[in-house]
Amino acid sequence: MAGPSLADVRAAERRLRGRLHRTPVLTCRGMDRLAGRRLLFKCELFQRTGSFKIRGALNAVRSLVEDSERAGRDLPRAVVTHSSGNHGQALACAAQAEGIPAHIVVPHTASRCKQDAIRSYGATLVPCEPSDTSRAGTAAHVVQRTGGILVHPNQDPAVIAGQGTIALEVLEQAPEVNAVVVPVGGGGMIAGIAVAIKALRPDVKVFAAEPRNADDCYQSKVRGELTPNLHPPDTIADAVKTSIGPNTWPIIRDLVDDVLTVSEEEIKRATRLVWERMKLLIEPTAGVGVAAVLSEQFQAVPRDVENVCIVLCGGNVDLSSLTWLTDLPGKAE
Amino acid sequence: MAGPSLADVRAAERRLRGRLHRTPVLTCRGMDRLAGRRLLFKCELFQRTGSFKIRGALNAVRSLVEDSERAGRDLPRAVVTHSSGNHGQALACAAQAEGIPAHIVVPHTASRCKQDAIRSYGATLVPCEPSDTSRAGTAAHVVQRTGGILVHPNQDPAVIAGQGTIALEVLEQAPEVNAVVVPVGGGGMIAGIAVAIKALRPDVKVFAAEPRNADDCYQSKVRGELTPNLHPPDTIADAVKTSIGPNTWPIIRDLVDDVLTVSEEEIKRATRLVWERMKLLIEPTAGVGVAAVLSEQFQAVPRDVENVCIVLCGGNVDLSSLTWLTDLPGKAE
Repeated sequence: MAGPSLADVRAAERRLRGRLHRTPVLTCRGMDRLAGRRLLFKCELFQRTGSFKIRGALNAVRSLVEDSERAGRDLPRAVVTHSSGNHGQALACAAQAEGIPAHIVVPHTASRCKQDAIRSYGATLVPCEPSDTSRAGTAAHVVQRTGGILVHPNQDPAVIAGQGTIALEVLEQAPEVNAVVVPVGGGGMIAGIAVAIKALRPDVKVFAAEPRNADDCYQSKVRGELTPNLHPPDTIADAVKTSIGPNTWPIIRDLVDDVLTVSEEEIKRATRLVWERMKLLIEPTAGVGVAAVLSEQFQAVPRDVENVCIVLCGGNVDLSSLTWLTDLPGKAE
Repeated sequence: MAGPSLADVRAAERRLRGRLHRTPVLTCRGMDRLAGRRLLFKCELFQRTGSFKIRGALNAVRSLVEDSERAGRDLPRAVVTHSSGNHGQALACAAQAEGIPAHIVVPHTASRCKQDAIRSYGATLVPCEPSDTSRAGTAAHVVQRTGGILVHPNQDPAVIAGQGTIALEVLEQAPEVNAVVVPVGGGGMIAGIAVAIKALRPDVKVFAAEPRNADDCYQSKVRGELTPNLHPPDTIADAVKTSIGPNTWPIIRDLVDDVLTVSEEEIKRATRLVWERMKLLIEPTAGVGVAAVLSEQFQAVPRDVENVCIVLCGGNVDLSSLTWLTDLPGKAE
């Protein structure tokens, strides 16, 4: 299966225009001083549904609707996915906007706060056991029962192309950018961004940022072959526990310049730093990119990589579970 | 003593230009739906030092410097204030920018986080007992000892004029505004804003928002005379525990349209709502204005007051003391 091209990302941009926010790029002198470079924060936490995921989900749903219209068919009967997190919310929101039923498979252990968010977009929650097999099996069953279409959170080409629209905005909003740093879970966001950046501005570096406890992207790059996480990873950056997959891996292999890994402590400190200094309520997964840029490893990146854009991918923090924050020893730096 | 005029606010704007941020005005459809009006959030939490207080502090310090230069005198030997909160940080930052020593009187009970913030701007901390008498007495002593000048957090006319620059920006950024809602403690911010708004756009309503547990402004307006809080108020909105004073009261009496009071529960829920929906880490004091607009009382405001600007005054949350958040029963709405 051929991955999406710049043309697909451009088509996604046209589809999403006026439906989503063009999120701002913010700066902070205090953070620049800590990093020793100029940082550009692409604020996807302000995106509709609280994360970038709506870009891919809405592009996928709009593409399905356009295909139906072109073929003179009825709209899809339903869209289905398995995700208790940001993609679940995003697909529910996208489906609601297009008047299509959404069925979201969610482990019964997911927090009430996340379940409520999905339900608030009118989607049907389908409970499953908290295991990969149960999630996939339940989703397959729901697809069969409803005649719906599965929209994969990160391997669907339309999802990847939708996430790539972030790059088009960054290049317009901050043409001085020398590098983009993107947290990687399933790899949909970095694949879409890399496709667009390397087609338009091959001089701009694309860095993946990953928790050391979920470093399948790093391992895959080192070995030169897709190497998923062996065990369910233990990281506070819950949105990047997923491994990269068959559609995102070739793009990452060919177009991503380097993978930076960070510790749990670094992720927590970076997240807290953004809260304290920038007053932006990012989720810890967004802190992964910030931690990467503040890491010692990043000091080795040449100094002419001066303007570094970090994608603050989301802000869906479960406020009832902030014990990690109060338990964090000492100050943020 | 005559209060500041529009000319003073304009002069402050010239003084502060290029030195401070022109903070953005953000919107959020979800919040509009809850309020039943269009809300414009003036994001002073993104201001330098994390609150609007730097506007007044820097205007006061710059005015002192300009006076000295005009008179051919030396710079002031020091600036002094008593505030463990945002004004303390702001004055320390302003003094550092102008190369003047700052002495900040702080109760020894103030959190380490706040003391660190003040110290990070190079100011000298002077500990006192946590009582009004000790604070004032210690500050007077420091003024005498250092030959410095006291910059009052909210009654200094230059401070009031500096805060008024918020209004000039709002009128430019959102000329469609029909009302401005401003949290009130000592009243410096609302007095400055009211002076500017009523001189330029008398059709725009100016509402004060106040915790019911610290309702001296409301009581003063009802009785028609300055009525400070009798006891130290108990409210989570710690930046508005102060009472309005002799310089802000006449302005508030003559120019503020109404005072809205809200409960502690309303403040906490509104604060959490802004965190969850807007991903903005406001401090609870900023939640006072949001709570006022979401209150039943606000429903009585005529429907043609459609575009309502809420000043999100600051984002200096002590992240180590978030127990109120996790203790809050149920959901944010």
